[in-house]
Amino acid sequence: LKETKKSALQQILDELHPYDVAQLYKGLPEKHHHKFITFLTPDQIADLIQELDHDMQIEILHKLGIERSSKVMDLMDNDDLADLLNELSVDKIQEFLDVMKKEDSQHIQSLMSYPADTAGGLMTNQFVWIHADQTVRQAVDKLKEYAHFSENIYYLYVINEEKQLVGVVSYRDLLIADMHEVIEDLMFNRVVSVHVDDDQEEVAQTIERYDFIAVPVVDNRNKLLGIITVDDAIDVFIKEANEDIEKLSASGKDIDFHTKATTAAVRRLPWLVLLLFIGLVSGSIISGFEETLEQVVALIFFMPMIAGMTGNTGTQSLAVVVRGIVTTNVDRKTAFKLILRELRVGIIIGITCGVLISLIAFLWQDQNMYLGFVVGVSLLVTLIVGTLAGTIIPLLLYRFGVDPAVASGPLITTLNDIFSLMIYFGIATAFLHQLVSL
Amino acid sequence: LKETKKSALQQILDELHPYDVAQLYKGLPEKHHHKFITFLTPDQIADLIQELDHDMQIEILHKLGIERSSKVMDLMDNDDLADLLNELSVDKIQEFLDVMKKEDSQHIQSLMSYPADTAGGLMTNQFVWIHADQTVRQAVDKLKEYAHFSENIYYLYVINEEKQLVGVVSYRDLLIADMHEVIEDLMFNRVVSVHVDDDQEEVAQTIERYDFIAVPVVDNRNKLLGIITVDDAIDVFIKEANEDIEKLSASGKDIDFHTKATTAAVRRLPWLVLLLFIGLVSGSIISGFEETLEQVVALIFFMPMIAGMTGNTGTQSLAVVVRGIVTTNVDRKTAFKLILRELRVGIIIGITCGVLISLIAFLWQDQNMYLGFVVGVSLLVTLIVGTLAGTIIPLLLYRFGVDPAVASGPLITTLNDIFSLMIYFGIATAFLHQLVSL
Repeated sequence: LKETKKSALQQILDELHPYDVAQLYKGLPEKHHHKFITFLTPDQIADLIQELDHDMQIEILHKLGIERSSKVMDLMDNDDLADLLNELSVDKIQEFLDVMKKEDSQHIQSLMSYPADTAGGLMTNQFVWIHADQTVRQAVDKLKEYAHFSENIYYLYVINEEKQLVGVVSYRDLLIADMHEVIEDLMFNRVVSVHVDDDQEEVAQTIERYDFIAVPVVDNRNKLLGIITVDDAIDVFIKEANEDIEKLSASGKDIDFHTKATTAAVRRLPWLVLLLFIGLVSGSIISGFEETLEQVVALIFFMPMIAGMTGNTGTQSLAVVVRGIVTTNVDRKTAFKLILRELRVGIIIGITCGVLISLIAFLWQDQNMYLGFVVGVSLLVTLIVGTLAGTIIPLLLYRFGVDPAVASGPLITTLNDIFSLMIYFGIATAFLHQLVSL
Repeated sequence: LKETKKSALQQILDELHPYDVAQLYKGLPEKHHHKFITFLTPDQIADLIQELDHDMQIEILHKLGIERSSKVMDLMDNDDLADLLNELSVDKIQEFLDVMKKEDSQHIQSLMSYPADTAGGLMTNQFVWIHADQTVRQAVDKLKEYAHFSENIYYLYVINEEKQLVGVVSYRDLLIADMHEVIEDLMFNRVVSVHVDDDQEEVAQTIERYDFIAVPVVDNRNKLLGIITVDDAIDVFIKEANEDIEKLSASGKDIDFHTKATTAAVRRLPWLVLLLFIGLVSGSIISGFEETLEQVVALIFFMPMIAGMTGNTGTQSLAVVVRGIVTTNVDRKTAFKLILRELRVGIIIGITCGVLISLIAFLWQDQNMYLGFVVGVSLLVTLIVGTLAGTIIPLLLYRFGVDPAVASGPLITTLNDIFSLMIYFGIATAFLHQLVSL
């Protein structure tokens, strides 16, 4: 590349948003990655790195070498940097921390000590605070000083001598205030904050409910530790939605369009093998009713329909529970009300579908009245059981803190398969005499 | 209530965040709702109303009467108000618009003309704009003037004489600038904006990708029409996730913990009745293979396992597609790559599970070699077909713009039921001679 082109490129890169630079970088063939990076200033690399996934981040650090990497790391947001370092080996982490400024490395180490899915794991400690007795002018001067790292922040947090959170002022309040006004007179006292140990889901809910741009994070003594911004909350919502979908489909963690076939297969297989064995249980139930089946072969024709319907209604109930848990705090009363509601739903759809299938079975199978009765009653009972299973099983798992991924859609479907076959063939066997006599 | 208590309550309400006031309101028995509202100022009612769902909003308007309602409406955010009015009858809308200030009612009418799921439907036109040749002081003066309705906004948009969007300045930039500086020297020129007709999903993605607090909305001529704030983007992400879950579970629209049993049943029934008939198709396939079954009863024992596994792998693939569509733009190349990847996945899991079940069938059913072979090969083929069906069907629906809710999990499961039974009994019938001879 000629010098003029170089400077033209540099100018374009300078004006692009980090997301677009990252798209450009990802679009380049891998052999050009190194050259591309040499065009960027450390500042631009820091921005770029925050937009990439972990594999690509580590690739860049590798290309930069430890000296330039540490320069870039100094310019990264602390929370992103902590996440990145968490991906590296212990030796490598120490190597990077050693070349960092001492103050920075302490910050990073304290951030890395919080679990990734808590408020502590999400927060950044790059925020600007002020004391209540300072003036607007002092606040603005402080902002100017820290302007380079408070870009995404729109509130100024007010703390007392013990670093406890006592108030908040928005940039807008500062802008429309007079320079000599005291922060205390402007600030809002009833600050909503989250605790450093709070689950990331609660944090995201707080930001969503109150329409916040950021929320402060405090410890037990209300000491201000950091802030979490709304973009992190969005990431949490997307992640939680993906987890819900994993629950419903047992599709295994982290499979997207770019996952390799072998990786995707390995992640999906454990579930499938487990479900294969559960499926064999259904088979052995059927083999237990071999005599009934041999006498009334027509029973088999309705088997897929009954098993399928029970699975479907269970999945529908499961979806309601899985989504409800995201936005509602489920206490005993809520759970009980929900189970009662779903019982009613099960009865209504059970009666509707039961009557319908009775008529169909009666007309299809040589007007066999008893067959219509057996199939109809079975469907009624299995739909009620299936609906309740799809409600109660995930609620119990949630109640006992079991990883809710266990309550996956296919698991409910397969369990409902077993329930439905036992009910169907049980009822059929009870009425075997009448079924055969016609 | 005594006067002293009244004023104490009023003071508390004044300090609470609208979300908390709304929680309080929802927690009260319905007979106290009216009294509660009389405690609130129109400003507080406007805030409260924005936190409630449509049924409760309309209840409040009813209680307030047209005069006070219109006062409250004047204080609401325009985008929320437009959404609320959209729920009312045409007569009622006109009645409210008539008592509003003329300027307001024109704004509202223009907002109501955009479809709810587009940028136009999400945007508010309550934002503050400025010209590039004005100074920081003029900008701040303008902010002070409009402070009452620009609470959630953290950028100032810069427009030219034709109202075209030419730049953006953040409050932070204004704060740290000198009062006599000209906006043009501070502003950022390469503003990312969305088009008024853009789908709400694209808008939310833009905000997420660029970590924006708000994004401006423009028309074909780049004229600034409104802004969309990040809290609306979060709502879109939650809504989209719920829709994905509906797709996977066919659970019907808008069923949450508070939906009445009859309503929930009515919303879920159409799917179930449709799936009931599809389930009967499976039954009639089995009845077509009655002869094969009567000769080798053991085939029935593996039927639930094969049908179930095919359904499960299909759901897993479906989940990958449904989630992928949220974050990736699916073109022909991406779709083709994905289908190829899932084909490979199907082959890997097909071979693994096929070999496993061959051994199990061989050992379980009196060491019948041919039965092991038939069951194993059937599972291999059905898993490949199931994986492809779970990938291709939703992609095709997406491609042809069919409401993707049709590609629901239960539908894929039920279709895969039919495929798997045809393949399984087809292969078994082909090898019937060998199966019987042992």
